[in-house]
Amino acid sequence: MSTSPAFANTPQPPYYAVIFSSRRANGDDGYDAMAARMVELAARQSGFIGVESVRGSDGFGITVSYWKSAESIAAWKANVDHHAAQERGKSAWYEHYEVKVAKVERAYGKPRV
Amino acid sequence: MSTSPAFANTPQPPYYAVIFSSRRANGDDGYDAMAARMVELAARQSGFIGVESVRGSDGFGITVSYWKSAESIAAWKANVDHHAAQERGKSAWYEHYEVKVAKVERAYGKPRV
Repeated sequence: MSTSPAFANTPQPPYYAVIFSSRRANGDDGYDAMAARMVELAARQSGFIGVESVRGSDGFGITVSYWKSAESIAAWKANVDHHAAQERGKSAWYEHYEVKVAKVERAYGKPRV
Repeated sequence: MSTSPAFANTPQPPYYAVIFSSRRANGDDGYDAMAARMVELAARQSGFIGVESVRGSDGFGITVSYWKSAESIAAWKANVDHHAAQERGKSAWYEHYEVKVAKVERAYGKPRV
């Protein structure tokens, strides 16, 4: 389904998406290492499908992770290491963030020629 | 709900999200003007809530637009000017793209202190 590692390889709907929009606070402060580790950790969770992520030069970013079920998202949210990262995200890494949990009902891509 | 224009001002769920992941082809070829016009046009559509968008320096981008209903998304997809832009997107602007239509069930943000 994907032409590039940037695109998640998603199955036929239905499945779930977590849309994480954020603005980074100034300074790295361990952020890059944590972000890489969280992707690695998420990929090992039951129900994980894939992730797509972009951050602009202004510090605003969107990460969408895809999951098989609402239950797999809840389990990832409660993961101990992830929970520690969430707390640090609140206190240090993000000026602001918004999280949306959504059920993907339909999906299509650019037609292949 | 938002601290910055980059964040969409979304209501309490349920509502809909269209997740558009794309990789740009090389060259502007009228892309920037079209993209600005499409955001302007979308904002005038019935049921439009808001939009969040980021593109990285490698050409991969994520745009999430938020809508009140699946019907408002269908109407926007069928809009004549938007349809022309979609066709040009297929032929010239995007190396690849994926579209997902999802129903937002839960949402929360960084707690305000």
